[in-house]
Amino acid sequence: MNTNFKRLPKHIGIIPDGNRRWASDQNKGKHEGYQFGIDPGFNLYELCLELGINELTFYGFTQDNTKRPKIQTEAFQKACVDAVIKLANRDANLLVIGNTDSTVFPKDLLPFANKRVSFGKGLININFLVNYGWHWDLEYSKTKERNEEGNLYNTIASSDISRIDLIIRWGGRRRLSGFLPVQSVYSDFYILDDYWPDFKSDHLYKALDWYQTQDVTLGG
Amino acid sequence: MNTNFKRLPKHIGIIPDGNRRWASDQNKGKHEGYQFGIDPGFNLYELCLELGINELTFYGFTQDNTKRPKIQTEAFQKACVDAVIKLANRDANLLVIGNTDSTVFPKDLLPFANKRVSFGKGLININFLVNYGWHWDLEYSKTKERNEEGNLYNTIASSDISRIDLIIRWGGRRRLSGFLPVQSVYSDFYILDDYWPDFKSDHLYKALDWYQTQDVTLGG
Repeated sequence: MNTNFKRLPKHIGIIPDGNRRWASDQNKGKHEGYQFGIDPGFNLYELCLELGINELTFYGFTQDNTKRPKIQTEAFQKACVDAVIKLANRDANLLVIGNTDSTVFPKDLLPFANKRVSFGKGLININFLVNYGWHWDLEYSKTKERNEEGNLYNTIASSDISRIDLIIRWGGRRRLSGFLPVQSVYSDFYILDDYWPDFKSDHLYKALDWYQTQDVTLGG
Repeated sequence: MNTNFKRLPKHIGIIPDGNRRWASDQNKGKHEGYQFGIDPGFNLYELCLELGINELTFYGFTQDNTKRPKIQTEAFQKACVDAVIKLANRDANLLVIGNTDSTVFPKDLLPFANKRVSFGKGLININFLVNYGWHWDLEYSKTKERNEEGNLYNTIASSDISRIDLIIRWGGRRRLSGFLPVQSVYSDFYILDDYWPDFKSDHLYKALDWYQTQDVTLGG
């Protein structure tokens, strides 16, 4: 595929779904799927660095997800921690966003939570949603000073995450599942039926190839 | 197509896009497309009554849309008014939601704005977004009494609109364009390439046929 794109998104949102279905297909336990989601994330990161993408947001896990069986919850918590430890050896500015006032938020990620931390040359902004909840994100504004002049965007918990141009979801579901409702209002959605652990570069290129044909109107 | 669906959405969101592109294809002025969007809405309404759908939300126009040329703005304002006048002779509970503190909000719709009005037998809830803005909707909570115990949902301007199960968009764009960010967090999206004035019943049936194959997890 021609990877000279005439127009690239500045910020891509990643919904890496299908880890459990992938694991079942491999005759593994569902919880085993999450570890196989780490390398795909780094492959995607490398491709985005090459392309010069400014910002990437990964859906780690949500408050909703923590209703799942304990073995799964522990597995995706561990996968998130392992991903961050690995990223700490790369070049990125990491922002972990999520509700830290809960025992399900991994303690190992507290040093990276709700403030951006630079690794290496800081070549790209990476946002990682960990114990994130859309309701928690929007409700956060209540804890800020009420200001009639203020911009709503400045009062949500995820206010340091910019508007998302393109959201790519793996695993075939055509929904946001609570992914950053404010940043997603104008995003283009690209859905892949493949499961996230089966990520290949062609997935990203197909999404970008489609994206460059879309207009950007911001509702106008 | 078999229209005995095993699972139906309670609430369907309608993004009736493509009126201008349809008009251009017909060698009409772009602004002429909007009037051709009214009958499709009533065809859809009839089909949903037959199926027993509880609630329908139509995207009329947004605050963003009013940046368009005056001839277009006036045309979609008139189409919204005409649609409501026609609906007043049917059986529905209408709620018009939008920012009425603006001259672009059609005066004729003020009697129906921001409170539900019953027509005839009131067989279905119809929500109509008129001069709606996602930012206006979320910002609205600032005008309500701040209450730490309160539910965010109760404080948004569109709090009388329930969670949306299925969003159907005509005109091929794969985005929300600011459509009810809170109610859309778990919605399934179905996109049709056809332009809205070319609506046919098969579009709805195809969307419902797809919808019944989707699971409902609410992020869990």
